[in-house]
Amino acid sequence: MSSVTLSIDAMGGDHAPEVVLEGLQLFCRRRSDVNFLLHGQSDALAPLVSKHKLASRCALIDHPDVVSMSAKPSSALRKGKTTSMWGMIESVKQGEASAGVSAGNTGALMAMSMMILRKMPGVHRPAMTAIWPTLNGRSVVLDVGANLDADADQLVEFAVMGEAYARAVFGTKRPTVGLLNIGAEDEKGRDAVKFASEIMRTRDIGIEFKGYVEGNDISMGVADVIVTDGFTGNVALKTAEGTARLVSRYVREALTSSLLSKAGAALAASGLRDLRTKLNPSSVNGGVLLGLNGVIVKSHGGTDAEGFATAIKLAADLANSHYMEEVSSGLKRVSQLGIAPETVE
Amino acid sequence: MSSVTLSIDAMGGDHAPEVVLEGLQLFCRRRSDVNFLLHGQSDALAPLVSKHKLASRCALIDHPDVVSMSAKPSSALRKGKTTSMWGMIESVKQGEASAGVSAGNTGALMAMSMMILRKMPGVHRPAMTAIWPTLNGRSVVLDVGANLDADADQLVEFAVMGEAYARAVFGTKRPTVGLLNIGAEDEKGRDAVKFASEIMRTRDIGIEFKGYVEGNDISMGVADVIVTDGFTGNVALKTAEGTARLVSRYVREALTSSLLSKAGAALAASGLRDLRTKLNPSSVNGGVLLGLNGVIVKSHGGTDAEGFATAIKLAADLANSHYMEEVSSGLKRVSQLGIAPETVE
Repeated sequence: MSSVTLSIDAMGGDHAPEVVLEGLQLFCRRRSDVNFLLHGQSDALAPLVSKHKLASRCALIDHPDVVSMSAKPSSALRKGKTTSMWGMIESVKQGEASAGVSAGNTGALMAMSMMILRKMPGVHRPAMTAIWPTLNGRSVVLDVGANLDADADQLVEFAVMGEAYARAVFGTKRPTVGLLNIGAEDEKGRDAVKFASEIMRTRDIGIEFKGYVEGNDISMGVADVIVTDGFTGNVALKTAEGTARLVSRYVREALTSSLLSKAGAALAASGLRDLRTKLNPSSVNGGVLLGLNGVIVKSHGGTDAEGFATAIKLAADLANSHYMEEVSSGLKRVSQLGIAPETVE
Repeated sequence: MSSVTLSIDAMGGDHAPEVVLEGLQLFCRRRSDVNFLLHGQSDALAPLVSKHKLASRCALIDHPDVVSMSAKPSSALRKGKTTSMWGMIESVKQGEASAGVSAGNTGALMAMSMMILRKMPGVHRPAMTAIWPTLNGRSVVLDVGANLDADADQLVEFAVMGEAYARAVFGTKRPTVGLLNIGAEDEKGRDAVKFASEIMRTRDIGIEFKGYVEGNDISMGVADVIVTDGFTGNVALKTAEGTARLVSRYVREALTSSLLSKAGAALAASGLRDLRTKLNPSSVNGGVLLGLNGVIVKSHGGTDAEGFATAIKLAADLANSHYMEEVSSGLKRVSQLGIAPETVE
């Protein structure tokens, strides 16, 4: 693995810059092949860099302003050029870094990334990914909120981009792709979903299409890539988070309900530690806006240092992969079939 | 509580008629105020009725045919008049029973219910409910799959019907209503969702509207009623089921991973039994197609006897409530405001 430079928005996130720097430190202890361009307010960052002994791995780039977590994307775009987020993306655009990471305002990050990096040829709309823990390991779900809707062509594009992404992130040779619907039968579902299914079933777009999957199939790991529109995907992702939190609460109550239960929980401590690790959202933190000329990883805004380190690892893995070429060649294949015409910009 | 008669499709469901009769027996042991019209094939049912000693509580009504679990709604409608499902609904229509229950083919049940019972005045589209376990108790989520989409007027109708339903089922005086979206800010989301929110915020439709909620808020119990379109609601419901199953599997693995963990699990047995009860889907089984001139409860097709008993209890509770009047007066209120014009049939 050759050395990689990543661009970091040090000011983005609910607990920035502290958590960002702690995450960097965690990551740097584990990996020595990555260096960083750290974008943000020097006054705030310099003491943290020295505290965490990161000076040899980080170059500090000063930006006076920060995109607030509540800023509207449109206003962030207008007034954003002096912010750490803009600087982070610009470094990726200029080729100074192979990928970028921010835990900041999602809407602003998507809008700025699209404006600075532009869409790949053949992409109608970029899509946001999430990594979803399943019975068999992990799956990629997209779109989880970059768009409100998706027509059939866009769903096919999401499938092609998500499949290339799964190959890069999981190392799976032939990831399977499922299309989220509310029934397994051919005649069920919205028109866009039915048309997308027909295209993927009948045209050779070079992916392993498994047909429709339902909400309960996602966690069961029936496909490596789950394709849906951004509204549905966002609701599904957050619903799963809420359900996991509810069940975790039930487990805690069950194991503290009596002295005997508490004693049992103490004995089972090592198993329960594994459980906590599995349910820890930090371990799957990091989404990517697929379809841009550059890799930007979005970390959850409220994540902890471990979660930010996970997002950095994802960026480093993508920087080391051929994912951009894979996505681009997949999109070319689809556009040559005449399904998804080149987008006009 | 006065005596109530319920109409039962004894042939519907993956394990009918056995599970249906076992569920009836469980219910009858707990409640003596309910009698049953049992629709199905007499030859199959008579021995089960006598085995479970239900003869004094059930009148058997013979139907030669059964709607198969895989039948398309259109074909079930054409050829359905001789089936137990049709007979079950017809008894509700004729006033012989106050409510009906089936664990059969969902699409067929919805289509037949709409054809036989007709929509209430003011209803554009009926909506299917689900009861969702939360941190605070239970919430109603609708639509979970009766429709593929919903415009703003329909979402407002769902809110009004769901609120009346929550009052009847939970006994809550002023249930709160949340609208499912992918962000809490006013400017986020699909147009239909934004328009529906504006109507509920600015017009006096007589409900306690809490604004937007996100997927993770459902399990946290932030509102008693969660309103969404049928596609999103169905995906959310099934995603939550899948996630709960995954986490349960993790818990089981954690507590059987070593001898020590197993010993701990044995000590914590009573707490873990509570956990199993809480996670048992049987305890929240039963959806209702709101907006029809009659109460039909849909049980999960794969439910067990306990789950079928839960669906029967829901039907009995609704039969004993003023829910039809509540829904109807809520709809009248909305239609008088000129938001949702009377539907033309």
